[in-house]
Amino acid sequence: MIVAMNADASRSDIEAVIDRISTYDLKAQSMPGGERTAVGIVSAIPPDLRDALTVTLQGMPGVDHVTQVTRAYKRASREFHPTDTIVTVKGVSVGGREVIVAAGPCAIESREQLMAAAEVVKANGGKILRGGAFKPRTSPYAFQGLGLEGLKLLKEAGEATGLVTVTEVMDDHDLDAIIEHADILQIGARNMQNYPLLTAVGKSKHPVIIKRGPSATIDEWLLAAEYVLAQGNGNAILCERGVHPLDRQHTRYTLDLSAVPVAKALSHLPVIVDPSHACGNWRYVSAMSKAAISAGADGLLVEIHPNPGSALCDGAQSLSLDSFRTLMGELGTVADAVDRCLD
Amino acid sequence: MIVAMNADASRSDIEAVIDRISTYDLKAQSMPGGERTAVGIVSAIPPDLRDALTVTLQGMPGVDHVTQVTRAYKRASREFHPTDTIVTVKGVSVGGREVIVAAGPCAIESREQLMAAAEVVKANGGKILRGGAFKPRTSPYAFQGLGLEGLKLLKEAGEATGLVTVTEVMDDHDLDAIIEHADILQIGARNMQNYPLLTAVGKSKHPVIIKRGPSATIDEWLLAAEYVLAQGNGNAILCERGVHPLDRQHTRYTLDLSAVPVAKALSHLPVIVDPSHACGNWRYVSAMSKAAISAGADGLLVEIHPNPGSALCDGAQSLSLDSFRTLMGELGTVADAVDRCLD
Amino acid sequence: MIVAMNADASRSDIEAVIDRISTYDLKAQSMPGGERTAVGIVSAIPPDLRDALTVTLQGMPGVDHVTQVTRAYKRASREFHPTDTIVTVKGVSVGGREVIVAAGPCAIESREQLMAAAEVVKANGGKILRGGAFKPRTSPYAFQGLGLEGLKLLKEAGEATGLVTVTEVMDDHDLDAIIEHADILQIGARNMQNYPLLTAVGKSKHPVIIKRGPSATIDEWLLAAEYVLAQGNGNAILCERGVHPLDRQHTRYTLDLSAVPVAKALSHLPVIVDPSHACGNWRYVSAMSKAAISAGADGLLVEIHPNPGSALCDGAQSLSLDSFRTLMGELGTVADAVDRCLD
Amino acid sequence: MIVAMNADASRSDIEAVIDRISTYDLKAQSMPGGERTAVGIVSAIPPDLRDALTVTLQGMPGVDHVTQVTRAYKRASREFHPTDTIVTVKGVSVGGREVIVAAGPCAIESREQLMAAAEVVKANGGKILRGGAFKPRTSPYAFQGLGLEGLKLLKEAGEATGLVTVTEVMDDHDLDAIIEHADILQIGARNMQNYPLLTAVGKSKHPVIIKRGPSATIDEWLLAAEYVLAQGNGNAILCERGVHPLDRQHTRYTLDLSAVPVAKALSHLPVIVDPSHACGNWRYVSAMSKAAISAGADGLLVEIHPNPGSALCDGAQSLSLDSFRTLMGELGTVADAVDRCLD
Repeated sequence: MIVAMNADASRSDIEAVIDRISTYDLKAQSMPGGERTAVGIVSAIPPDLRDALTVTLQGMPGVDHVTQVTRAYKRASREFHPTDTIVTVKGVSVGGREVIVAAGPCAIESREQLMAAAEVVKANGGKILRGGAFKPRTSPYAFQGLGLEGLKLLKEAGEATGLVTVTEVMDDHDLDAIIEHADILQIGARNMQNYPLLTAVGKSKHPVIIKRGPSATIDEWLLAAEYVLAQGNGNAILCERGVHPLDRQHTRYTLDLSAVPVAKALSHLPVIVDPSHACGNWRYVSAMSKAAISAGADGLLVEIHPNPGSALCDGAQSLSLDSFRTLMGELGTVADAVDRCLD
Repeated sequence: MIVAMNADASRSDIEAVIDRISTYDLKAQSMPGGERTAVGIVSAIPPDLRDALTVTLQGMPGVDHVTQVTRAYKRASREFHPTDTIVTVKGVSVGGREVIVAAGPCAIESREQLMAAAEVVKANGGKILRGGAFKPRTSPYAFQGLGLEGLKLLKEAGEATGLVTVTEVMDDHDLDAIIEHADILQIGARNMQNYPLLTAVGKSKHPVIIKRGPSATIDEWLLAAEYVLAQGNGNAILCERGVHPLDRQHTRYTLDLSAVPVAKALSHLPVIVDPSHACGNWRYVSAMSKAAISAGADGLLVEIHPNPGSALCDGAQSLSLDSFRTLMGELGTVADAVDRCLD
Repeated sequence: MIVAMNADASRSDIEAVIDRISTYDLKAQSMPGGERTAVGIVSAIPPDLRDALTVTLQGMPGVDHVTQVTRAYKRASREFHPTDTIVTVKGVSVGGREVIVAAGPCAIESREQLMAAAEVVKANGGKILRGGAFKPRTSPYAFQGLGLEGLKLLKEAGEATGLVTVTEVMDDHDLDAIIEHADILQIGARNMQNYPLLTAVGKSKHPVIIKRGPSATIDEWLLAAEYVLAQGNGNAILCERGVHPLDRQHTRYTLDLSAVPVAKALSHLPVIVDPSHACGNWRYVSAMSKAAISAGADGLLVEIHPNPGSALCDGAQSLSLDSFRTLMGELGTVADAVDRCLD
Repeated sequence: MIVAMNADASRSDIEAVIDRISTYDLKAQSMPGGERTAVGIVSAIPPDLRDALTVTLQGMPGVDHVTQVTRAYKRASREFHPTDTIVTVKGVSVGGREVIVAAGPCAIESREQLMAAAEVVKANGGKILRGGAFKPRTSPYAFQGLGLEGLKLLKEAGEATGLVTVTEVMDDHDLDAIIEHADILQIGARNMQNYPLLTAVGKSKHPVIIKRGPSATIDEWLLAAEYVLAQGNGNAILCERGVHPLDRQHTRYTLDLSAVPVAKALSHLPVIVDPSHACGNWRYVSAMSKAAISAGADGLLVEIHPNPGSALCDGAQSLSLDSFRTLMGELGTVADAVDRCLD
């Protein structure tokens, strides 16, 4: 931690900062610069002290600003865990050489709809079936999901096809039921900073996909993963799904694909991409799926629907089963081109 | 709802759109324009059908885009509820002529700390005591609040001073306990789209402050209020607290004060402003508090601390008790200047 | 154009809107809906009338909002020009099947530096040499470019290697000199809405790359191209280079790769991508270059430098010549995977 | 400047950084921390070396990141120029105790229109008449201003009323003519990083208002001012006019009023606010004008029009002359409430 003093800070301002730091049993060192003095803390600062200390120092006379040199997350950091984490669920490994495709409907609507999608996922090399049973909707009047009935259909479809399953958990009241029925949990973008939920999921040790919130920085996203990891759950997968858009007219969010190489540089966790929510328009999903793989993503989370025009949720961004089939063919070639593989 | 067709949409594309609309028992009308035809739905569309219908139509051949002419929220809308809502809690009215100031520490740390703040709030014309017992923190290693013990201290301080109390609810498991101890609930910015929590708070009928999420549009914010109102809880207060900043270097968020007159034009609900979280630096809190009142806010939510330098949470943005005293003196004059009053 | 009236607009408010429209010799039609009436303009509205008309109508009593159904750009629009535009300069075609790579130093510093880069570009399948002679710099104290001397070096390097050349024009005073020395002009992101410059470049008919401004919507970007096209210069190439970032900590801008398929859907102009400025860190440039090609980009604009550590401008984001060589090898495979080719 | 090394940087990585710094005749000092070592530069770094040095060091092995402790601007900085700058033009002082209101039409359309506005400005305590002769327009088909004829009308109106005049300069070709006709220049938001124009205006020594670009950080805005100040022109006034909005539906931009106290803390230059462009809707202009004054702004730049409904440019955001009269009455009271005055 570096404390930059004002250009006109007095000698006693500087000493007061050093003294305050020493009350925390930390050692500080003054470093005079050309225009101002900086004070550096040369001991290791315990993680739970960092925020309080920053704030304390920022409020002191003569202090211009405080910079944290060390990252706020540790368990999620590649710096302290250099090798790639591979999350393996029922034989499907996310984070290895193979690119993993998870696909399925935004919301589970019926056995027929889900099975039609599941069979196409299975037949075309997808490994994970996604389907929402509890849906977060911006409007209270929109379809909110089938709930437990949807979970049962998901489990049934997973067993029938041998696909691994994933579904969103919005509420820790539902956590036990979801764990019983689905192989992987998903923390949605709107819940990325729902800390009680992150903690409960961490305690469950169940594999989890953590979507990036639409206004979350990459550090905030990694801190959300840190909440899960801090409870001893190392089965966390990061998922980029678009950040708040500059331009809402043509896409719902801006897919931040540079977050893929950045997150992989900063963290050892697998990183996948959801192009469907970001685009909000199925016409752009194929292009962005290929781009995601080329950017280094370990997998995709794609919405498909047997009949997008009649979907109860997010039909506009769902690929038809035919478009999905075509995409899977193309993705294999792209994966090969970047030294990965599909299936 | 208006469906704009492509310039080269065929006659049969247009008819298919009109036919599809009629399957929902709605009437549509084609309107040829200079370059393209628009199809308008001339019947009232039930709220729970709007999203599904938009998506269905957007996916049809020849459709360029679909525009919703009617707002997605209704109970929160001034159009259908023209008079101002005043939320009254134990004799304190938010949304009337009087500007209401809520103040207190970010996190409750001890009886001494809370009582010192409460007495200054009371003595200087504040009406509501704020204090966090359950704290959402970006880092899992930061101080997470005193929990139930904090709630008890809050209740005690409220009773001792006669101040109305407000505290954040992050988790519906805590809802009963919070309702028992605090007069007003607060939905934090990170939970603005936590729909199970909004629904639970709606069912509780307890007064609630709904903070705007850092990347939420004003319509999304009003839809969060709609979740609460749709459960029959009309005691909702909106709170602007800063949106995702262009520039994180000098303030934590960008306080969007134009959201105050906009939200008051679109909705009948009271609108208050939290300048502390937005600024993240106490030096700017006074200026922005006065600006908020001048922009038409019905109240303020301000962080104060007996000793900001030693605060366990957000000390940098907390006013000292002396600065708060000075601010309250100035605020009265500003309130008068815009035909409001303080106390 | 659709004028949505308030729910409580009177009959005479609606008639006044229709009357006002008729004073422009346009025909309007009222369309009653479930909750409000919409008024649609059914004649073609001359482009130069649209803005003024929108504003006029928005100010009238009883009007809720005005929506433009027709796009503001026309010459840049694919709707009115369905086939792809290919911009061909000295035999190099941008916008066809071949993916075109433009590379070179951010700023031209010396003959040695430029020639070293040019030879590597040429030897590895690059077709265009980029190099800045006039540099827009955020700080007045930063290196501002070699000016005319730089232009002469660029022309010399182009002739020596047979590469097509591109350089930025910041000031129309320099336009003649630049056209004399370089094959393609570049409008930088900061100048995307410098209308006198866009107009001068349009009049020159010289091929031009138009970078998207960091806060420009896609429609604003296409309107910048419309300025050039409206002067009769059809040789315009669009270039995505990153939009204002949510998170400045790890990348300079957020590369918006979904802008590639979106711009290609809306416009017939070629679209290329500059991953170097967006990333601001050479470590991420290769991943994003491959992603750009997979997203459908017609080319790349990449910064390279013989010795990035000593560059006078943007060294941190420049690939070394070795990294560039490696990248070009990989790009060919990726281009093949998406049915394009490199060289 | 502080160079944070990776946790696993070697001893020789650290020494190489110190050696490289010494080649610039600067002294560096290593400071071991708990997890990583930081290297600080303890000599004053010449402004023109900072960027190049940052980039050089960022590219070196073992370097995690480089932080500039010293601000990039100096002449614009309050740190090195603690007293407020007051810009005085023909007896009107911006930056002193008096709040200065500049008002007038977005675009000058005719003598009648301009004189009607000018008389109302004068009669109600406004001190500066604004009016655009050269207009930057997003669409090439929109009205572009009257040019020289407009300048003549502006000069005439200024002389007739005794008001100081301000108009935008978009193009340095027009600079001499504008200086001859108007008392203050305005650099528009789209041109905030048009460096040739900033430099030309700096050389002219003519008073100038510098609008903040819609995606500019406060430091970038102050660096734009630094361009002007570096040429010896100290008559610069900063103008906040809204940043890129999260939500384009209800306002055009987000007026960042916290930029007022922040810019005044960082810089000695006067800071004024343009609420009209930010809001884009006259209904919100009064509220935001009062808020701006309460936030500490030294003045306002407001659009007014004798007949907003027929304005050729930005009518929706223009106050009618009656609304302006009312506003000026209210502003005086607000100015008094924050210890300023109006007239």
